[in-house]
Amino acid sequence: MESLSLALGSRAYPIHIGSGLISSAELYAPHLAGGRVAIVTNTVVAPLYLKAVKQATGAVAEIIVPDGEQTKSWQTLSRVFDALLEGRCGRDTLIVALGGGVIGDLAGFAAAVYQRGVPFIQVPTTLLAQVDSSVGGKTAINHALGKNMIGAFHQPRAVISDVATLDTLPERELRSGLAEVIKHGVALDAALVEWLESNVEKILKKDRAALAYAVRRSCELKARIVAEDERESGARALLNFGHTFGHAIEAGTGYGTWLHGEAVAAGMVMAAELSALMGHLKKTEVARLRALLKRAGLPVAGPALAPERLMELMALDKKAAKGRTRFIVLEAIGRAALRSGIDDAAVRGAIVAAAQ
Amino acid sequence: MESLSLALGSRAYPIHIGSGLISSAELYAPHLAGGRVAIVTNTVVAPLYLKAVKQATGAVAEIIVPDGEQTKSWQTLSRVFDALLEGRCGRDTLIVALGGGVIGDLAGFAAAVYQRGVPFIQVPTTLLAQVDSSVGGKTAINHALGKNMIGAFHQPRAVISDVATLDTLPERELRSGLAEVIKHGVALDAALVEWLESNVEKILKKDRAALAYAVRRSCELKARIVAEDERESGARALLNFGHTFGHAIEAGTGYGTWLHGEAVAAGMVMAAELSALMGHLKKTEVARLRALLKRAGLPVAGPALAPERLMELMALDKKAAKGRTRFIVLEAIGRAALRSGIDDAAVRGAIVAAAQ
Repeated sequence: MESLSLALGSRAYPIHIGSGLISSAELYAPHLAGGRVAIVTNTVVAPLYLKAVKQATGAVAEIIVPDGEQTKSWQTLSRVFDALLEGRCGRDTLIVALGGGVIGDLAGFAAAVYQRGVPFIQVPTTLLAQVDSSVGGKTAINHALGKNMIGAFHQPRAVISDVATLDTLPERELRSGLAEVIKHGVALDAALVEWLESNVEKILKKDRAALAYAVRRSCELKARIVAEDERESGARALLNFGHTFGHAIEAGTGYGTWLHGEAVAAGMVMAAELSALMGHLKKTEVARLRALLKRAGLPVAGPALAPERLMELMALDKKAAKGRTRFIVLEAIGRAALRSGIDDAAVRGAIVAAAQ
Repeated sequence: MESLSLALGSRAYPIHIGSGLISSAELYAPHLAGGRVAIVTNTVVAPLYLKAVKQATGAVAEIIVPDGEQTKSWQTLSRVFDALLEGRCGRDTLIVALGGGVIGDLAGFAAAVYQRGVPFIQVPTTLLAQVDSSVGGKTAINHALGKNMIGAFHQPRAVISDVATLDTLPERELRSGLAEVIKHGVALDAALVEWLESNVEKILKKDRAALAYAVRRSCELKARIVAEDERESGARALLNFGHTFGHAIEAGTGYGTWLHGEAVAAGMVMAAELSALMGHLKKTEVARLRALLKRAGLPVAGPALAPERLMELMALDKKAAKGRTRFIVLEAIGRAALRSGIDDAAVRGAIVAAAQ
């Protein structure tokens, strides 16, 4: 097992990475505040890992919700609150989020607002959640008019990433998670990109040492950024490389058609093409990104949607989220930067170039 | 105008108290972050003050919800989110809560979770909100299984308390707010109790100087406590003097039958009787509290409910909220203290004594 720390002063927390951690009672023990433990998980994960986590934590309440993005709704959240209140869970309750990104977002947001905030632990069981969404405290549910529109920054007390749980992860979801590892490298760390270029097949074969390295390095990079910019007023936005295009792909194709990591993969190619068009990035570097994504079995071109439609969706997304237009571009592999005032012609050109 | 500051480091904020402040653009100006302004208010307050606040802030969105406690629901909250998203309100939106405690709780919670948190300003228009609920950052909505069960600690950027708005406040609500002023004195400040004993009639006649003093002194006392214990892990609980009994009265009679301040008034008598029974407080001090409450036109005895029923409701409330039983007792007028392990017989005795 390796352990990192996300340095947030009095709210600092450990990120444990290894094999077989999910049933290690001693990893949960420091965070049991004497109150009840409630596990939130889904119908896919529960038969696999709920029993082990229940035994390790002594949980008295379990809330099993449907699998999938539609679970990030007020209706499901309300079910979580019903169960917590019926289980007489007080302010000293510890919530355990056992599952992928959807469960982490839902259970984390429940913890953020239940009785004005109770502690929670992330136990991610997908590669996407282990390398990205379980770290950093972003929690949310969706609103009919926008994804992740209702949420909170609520840091977990610990993240327990058991790479052995990835044994049961479908291959397509593994590849989707790998997209975020590639994103961490491409945006922040050229050495990680080089490592991936040598080890991508090991990841796809679920080699545990390779998985643990990819998770650890991703968490190190993300933890460093979150520690300096918890609420995304600056550097944290760099973690969204490829995501402006990616969100538009997800929205334009209907959420769930493309997995998040697949949309981010194609979105990264578009963002790289944009960087090249603006003269920040060499074309050979764009080709290098495409090659790595292809080896990872990820899409390098967007869906069959008119560039205008994607641009419309991006404009909507940006207006809702920020009220201004900015993009994350690459200055080199491993070095992302924020740029505003990018004109529509360049964005359109990037979408067209990515489709070639 | 007088201005206090709630000392919370980088999140410190001003509390402005005076007459005619509601239309002072310069009080809002420092908090307009360049984004849109959205006002949340209710059907009673809107015809009176919405226009003035709109002009002073340049608000582009207004959300007018029904009056009353039932407004603190997910349904109404969802309407607020709909309006914010339809109005293209981004992360730099400023929400203005214009109204009483219900509006402050609802709009404050909306601000806490809309796009993971946007700034808000409290513009309280009831005495209860001006002396208590607008200060300190507690926000919440209700759940079918409990009041204020879903919420957040989210501090406003400013509180603008215009005592001239109390001109339109119904007398019964004025008295209800006065109960919280009395609570601040009885729990924390004997000098305030003495001042009230000389000035209670002025408050009831809505003398603006007297109202401004009562608001300012209440806010000073509350701000000091909140600054040292923002999340109620210790001293802040003292502000709940009379509230354990009060909440049971509200629940037992059906929310809205007794106003919050009325229930707190009778609850304070019960808590004072409990303090006397335990030997902490002189009986003459209990009599003094009763006399002041009577002059304020507030109830000094609980509703026609069996003591056992109130105790049952208190046990439920405490279990849901904390998982343990503790009471705030008085050691003297102006000096409250937390006590745990109080036996049921004493609590029952206090309820019976309060009914004499």
